[in-house]
Amino acid sequence: MLESALNPQAGKAQWIWYPGDFEMMLLLRVHSRRYERGMQITPCWHMDTFFPNIKFRRRFHLEKPVVFQVHATGEVAVEVDGGGRYCYDYQDGVRLEPGSHDLCITVFNPHELPALYIDADGLQTNGAWEASNVDSRWLPAGSWNFTSPSCPPSDFRLEMQPLQPVSVEKIGQGVLFDFGKEMMASLKGEGFKGEGILHISYGESREEALNYAECEVREDVKVTEDCFETTLPRAFRFVFLAPEGGLSAGGLTALYEYLPIENKGSFECSDDLLNRIYDTAVYTLHLNSREFFFDGIKRDRWVWGGDACQSYLLNYYSFFDSELCKRTMRALRGKDPVHQHHNTIQDYTCYWFISLYDYYLYTGDAAFLREVYRNARTLMDFCLETTDERGFMNARPEDWVFVDWAPINNKGDVSLIQILFARSLEVMALIAGLCGDENGRAFYHSLWQKCLKNCFEIFWSARYNCFTHGPAAASDAVVTKYANMFALSFGYLSEEQKAAVIQNALLNETVLPITTPYMRFYELAALCDAGCYEDVMGFLREYWGGMLRLGATSFWEAYDAAEQGAQHYAMYGRPFGKSLCHAWGAGPILLAGKYFLGVRPEAPGYEKFTVSPHLAGLAYIRGSVPTPGGTIDVFCDGEKAEVVNHTPFEGALEWKGQVVAVPPGQTVSLG
Amino acid sequence: MLESALNPQAGKAQWIWYPGDFEMMLLLRVHSRRYERGMQITPCWHMDTFFPNIKFRRRFHLEKPVVFQVHATGEVAVEVDGGGRYCYDYQDGVRLEPGSHDLCITVFNPHELPALYIDADGLQTNGAWEASNVDSRWLPAGSWNFTSPSCPPSDFRLEMQPLQPVSVEKIGQGVLFDFGKEMMASLKGEGFKGEGILHISYGESREEALNYAECEVREDVKVTEDCFETTLPRAFRFVFLAPEGGLSAGGLTALYEYLPIENKGSFECSDDLLNRIYDTAVYTLHLNSREFFFDGIKRDRWVWGGDACQSYLLNYYSFFDSELCKRTMRALRGKDPVHQHHNTIQDYTCYWFISLYDYYLYTGDAAFLREVYRNARTLMDFCLETTDERGFMNARPEDWVFVDWAPINNKGDVSLIQILFARSLEVMALIAGLCGDENGRAFYHSLWQKCLKNCFEIFWSARYNCFTHGPAAASDAVVTKYANMFALSFGYLSEEQKAAVIQNALLNETVLPITTPYMRFYELAALCDAGCYEDVMGFLREYWGGMLRLGATSFWEAYDAAEQGAQHYAMYGRPFGKSLCHAWGAGPILLAGKYFLGVRPEAPGYEKFTVSPHLAGLAYIRGSVPTPGGTIDVFCDGEKAEVVNHTPFEGALEWKGQVVAVPPGQTVSLG
Repeated sequence: MLESALNPQAGKAQWIWYPGDFEMMLLLRVHSRRYERGMQITPCWHMDTFFPNIKFRRRFHLEKPVVFQVHATGEVAVEVDGGGRYCYDYQDGVRLEPGSHDLCITVFNPHELPALYIDADGLQTNGAWEASNVDSRWLPAGSWNFTSPSCPPSDFRLEMQPLQPVSVEKIGQGVLFDFGKEMMASLKGEGFKGEGILHISYGESREEALNYAECEVREDVKVTEDCFETTLPRAFRFVFLAPEGGLSAGGLTALYEYLPIENKGSFECSDDLLNRIYDTAVYTLHLNSREFFFDGIKRDRWVWGGDACQSYLLNYYSFFDSELCKRTMRALRGKDPVHQHHNTIQDYTCYWFISLYDYYLYTGDAAFLREVYRNARTLMDFCLETTDERGFMNARPEDWVFVDWAPINNKGDVSLIQILFARSLEVMALIAGLCGDENGRAFYHSLWQKCLKNCFEIFWSARYNCFTHGPAAASDAVVTKYANMFALSFGYLSEEQKAAVIQNALLNETVLPITTPYMRFYELAALCDAGCYEDVMGFLREYWGGMLRLGATSFWEAYDAAEQGAQHYAMYGRPFGKSLCHAWGAGPILLAGKYFLGVRPEAPGYEKFTVSPHLAGLAYIRGSVPTPGGTIDVFCDGEKAEVVNHTPFEGALEWKGQVVAVPPGQTVSLG
Repeated sequence: MLESALNPQAGKAQWIWYPGDFEMMLLLRVHSRRYERGMQITPCWHMDTFFPNIKFRRRFHLEKPVVFQVHATGEVAVEVDGGGRYCYDYQDGVRLEPGSHDLCITVFNPHELPALYIDADGLQTNGAWEASNVDSRWLPAGSWNFTSPSCPPSDFRLEMQPLQPVSVEKIGQGVLFDFGKEMMASLKGEGFKGEGILHISYGESREEALNYAECEVREDVKVTEDCFETTLPRAFRFVFLAPEGGLSAGGLTALYEYLPIENKGSFECSDDLLNRIYDTAVYTLHLNSREFFFDGIKRDRWVWGGDACQSYLLNYYSFFDSELCKRTMRALRGKDPVHQHHNTIQDYTCYWFISLYDYYLYTGDAAFLREVYRNARTLMDFCLETTDERGFMNARPEDWVFVDWAPINNKGDVSLIQILFARSLEVMALIAGLCGDENGRAFYHSLWQKCLKNCFEIFWSARYNCFTHGPAAASDAVVTKYANMFALSFGYLSEEQKAAVIQNALLNETVLPITTPYMRFYELAALCDAGCYEDVMGFLREYWGGMLRLGATSFWEAYDAAEQGAQHYAMYGRPFGKSLCHAWGAGPILLAGKYFLGVRPEAPGYEKFTVSPHLAGLAYIRGSVPTPGGTIDVFCDGEKAEVVNHTPFEGALEWKGQVVAVPPGQTVSLG
């Protein structure tokens, strides 16, 4: 069941390619589509591309003769039963006689992803083939849901749906279109008259669309017919058209571009504000769930490891799209050689390793971990090049040590980085074990233990009785929440240490408060882990409710209730610099599923799970959490807690100090 | 003088790119243009490509304001005086005020080489700029002779010259065109009548062109007008056209494609056969001197490290095109990560290191060695991964240990490989020293010494008093010439060992004879080093003279005087498999310049040189050898030896036991 959930195309012929190269192709497209005022802004880290020349091979045994056609994106060479034994007339179909055969097909294409498709009786391309970029190494070929010979992977496109504006308003010489909610779309104009330049300014807010000079995204289109289409999808709710010359504007349709995925989870409760927060969070996550998980659809439109790490977790409680997780993790990892951290950020490299653990815990997909082990090792080698005798990973001059946007000193030893690095090593030991690499497992395990031991030696403060931001012995040692909350959620603390950390770091009002939704995500999770559900519920209503009260249709990169009017849209010194649709704003999905409904896997792929619902002051909560084997449905009010287990997995319901087993397919309640 | 000879574009604005990526682009083109019977045959090793997103930067001080235009192949982002300070309206020209500025320009192009050109007063792109593929590392930008804004490096094309056939002969329904000599050209047909398919068979020999079924290169063109052009240049002397349907053939012009380089050397002597051999050798080398040094123009049309290593040496005594050497060495090295040997062959990786030494000795261009040191180290790391306690490089299962086409056993320890590897380590020590990397120098030096010492321990046979092919202690130990001749020319032998090697290996008729021109190249050089000039002269007349007597217009991949007629054209089990224009056939160039004229550098870049002319039985010899600082002209007959030193370097003339200094600009003679 798990197998088919993760690979619904098993049994069909699939297009195949060099593993990871579909992602390289897509990422190159995605990362080259950000424009600011007509200037392309590419990422501040390296861009990889796909290999141009790929060999695909498989050994077959045929019971009867077969004639097959070779479909490929690129130039083809076919070798049958031995290197150099070319089949020059393959275009008329290749005939193989019964018996065992070695088939090797080369596809060359420097411009589009080289890919191959064969669908004949007993001879189909799929992930059982091997691929090589002719570097003397063979790997299992990449494949996905491309099962039609006429639709190769290089034709991959998101879906499109035309949407009409909800209001049209003439303002001065121009027209303002309000599409009612945030979206990513290109534009189709119809009914235009005359000829001239059309100035288009996009706005996530009305104010931004009406400010051609300072809006983040704008373009000028030369209109010569009664209709036009723009080429790139942009993020907006509002569009202002200012025609120039003899042109007069007509109507506008938004061509909404989206990944077709459904929310397999759900959440509903007695508080309508909470319900609206949940729905808006799901919509926010959906808008950022595209070729990959984006940080934000207006800005940066890029794939950042820290942001993605949170999106994966949100995804496990909503879309449960494991392909999207894998695409994003492959894209972030990129290709060898490794000369820089993910997005240049030390912590973001660690989040990639940590994501692998989360992915395995939620999906149980060991095959993916085995796939990435090779690349995980070379990435870890890059990290290990800078480790010292304490087992700490040190920063190169060019490395960015991010942690959070906050007034903190990240020079020298930073406790969060080493806690994240310890976890990364722990994950590597796990993967090595899954791959049967016992030497590797022992190697990473001992490095993990060393790093973790030294984290406590260097960063645990006897004075503050919790982790300090830098070395505890330093005269300027100061407590921050970061290392404390991560160590807590990684299970690195004894019960005693946990209590100390909650009191001295997480709930300590003298400690630097966290202001970004990015780190608030982990803080709220840690507070829930620490049992502070009602504090978290209050914050949810205040912070996310505050955005909804201001008319948000998706959640923002940041929100400060103290700001007024268009102040809310400013960031990075620019009046409309803030992203009003940021994936990390979708945190309520995790709070709803993992902490209020209380559903979490206890073994990889939910083979074991627990449900511990928490009303947190609500009258009732109801919802579903997806797993690789079906949903787990939960209801809870003051009277009872009930679980419907639609999965083949063994669960346990914990409520008010009671525990009861939830067998596969059963409905069980307490109270 | 040396500086300007190597960089004639100094002072002009040049297009710049990521270092090595011009070569990656060209190599991808070159290696994707080999077709056999309509099927593209790509190399049996990996193909690299250029990076798609490059940042170029430079810090400038301007005395007065400047306005400059940005020329680029790709999409552009301009940042002035700080990351993120974008100049959105750069297309109208960028204005900089007097003072110091940091300019950073990003060029994105996934389809063609990203390159940049700026030519303003005080602000010019050139090799003083730095480039990065945004992987946190900056390198000196690549540049060459692209100095026109309208001619970017991606437009690089060889020259073209239309050539008419020397004879046209109607044979059956077709027409045979003889262009008089071997060439690489596409075809232009004119005066065709009717419409139909034209079957074109190319032949390096008349027999091949007339055999449509078995010729190596053929194509079918659909002719619908009175003229047509083929798209790919092919290697041929003869072309046979067989029109089909209502088509009748017209005339044919060869569009000869070539690299415009001149022979800066010369050789002439009293024997006309020798003169014709020399001229044909130069033509053979020229045909294979293109984007890179090819092995052969019909087959493989690829860049092989072993073949190239010889072409470089021939080039130093003829075209002295150091850019062509650098292009080829960069192309062979490719990009990191390294997962395989050059062309998959262990020895070919070593020849790459050895080529660096030769390049430095002849050109004195230390800058190139400093450029490649980074990549040389990672390639050597790849070799060192397999070294054992003796310091020998071992073969991975996927490695090809070539040595030579000969009935030899290359399993286990092979003396030639370890001698080549020792030399590679010696070269690495040299480069490390040039780069000021004293630790690296000491490291490679000690590895070199260890490997060399163990070569003598393991492979020097007390019984045979020379090197054996495998370990000398083995019961089946056998002498081959390979390790012996290379150790001799690398200077690894004492005078006593040298004499033993000459007698027991090189001139020993019981030792397996060398039959390929590839290894004969080194054998003849070693024989000359051993003073056997007249043996070499005799072989020249017999072997190369033999090909001329059979009508060769360029020298072949192999030649066996015992074969008859079309037997000469067969190889690899195919009737026309042999290449009749193979770079390694051009060996007489080296013999003429280095051994008969006797000109050789004694210090890098000819800063010191010697001239030791050898008549080898001829009545007189006369010729020139190019250096980075002008030619060295030599004349010798029985009476006297004379040198005209057109260089600024100090030379010495050695003749008949006498030695005399040859100061810069002077003419000196002995006798």
